[in-house]
Amino acid sequence: MPKYIAQIDVMPLKALLDPQGKAVTGSMKNLGLPEIENVRIGKHISLEIEAASKDAASAKVDEACKKLLCNQIMESYEFSILEAK
Amino acid sequence: MPKYIAQIDVMPLKALLDPQGKAVTGSMKNLGLPEIENVRIGKHISLEIEAASKDAASAKVDEACKKLLCNQIMESYEFSILEAK
Repeated sequence: MPKYIAQIDVMPLKALLDPQGKAVTGSMKNLGLPEIENVRIGKHISLEIEAASKDAASAKVDEACKKLLCNQIMESYEFSILEAK
Repeated sequence: MPKYIAQIDVMPLKALLDPQGKAVTGSMKNLGLPEIENVRIGKHISLEIEAASKDAASAKVDEACKKLLCNQIMESYEFSILEAK
C-alpha cells in the first residue's frame, strides 16, 4: 500500500486565551522585536500512514485528530497529506 | 507598514528521539489505527509582524526563531510568510 505523510497543525481556538503565546509576545518586545504581535502557539504533528488512497489516508488522519491529537473543546486542527516518495 | 503573518513549525531534530511522538505512535495502535507510524510532535507558532517588505519580515522572523522560538541544539524550524489581508 502507498505511504502518505500528514502534516497536522493543532492550534488553540481563536476565542480562547493563549497564555504561552501572550508570554512570547511580551518577550519579543524585550528581545528588540516589538513589531511582532499576536503570537499563538500550538502543536505541529507529522506522521506516516499506509492507506489505499489519499482519501482513505485523509479519513484516518481525521479520525486520529478527533480521537487523540486534538482536544476539540479547546483546539482546532487542520492538516495536509502528501504521498511519500 | 504592511502586516505579514508567519506560520512557523519547530520540530525535534530527526536524529533525536521524540518520546512524546513515540508515545502517541503507541497509542494509535490501541485506538485501532495501526497504519499510523513515525509520529513526531513539535510546535506550530503563528504570529503577526509589521515590516517594510516580505524580505524584511522574513529576516525578523528568522531572528525571532533563532533567539527565542527554537532551541537549535534540539530543534529545527521552517516558516512561511504571507501578507495579511
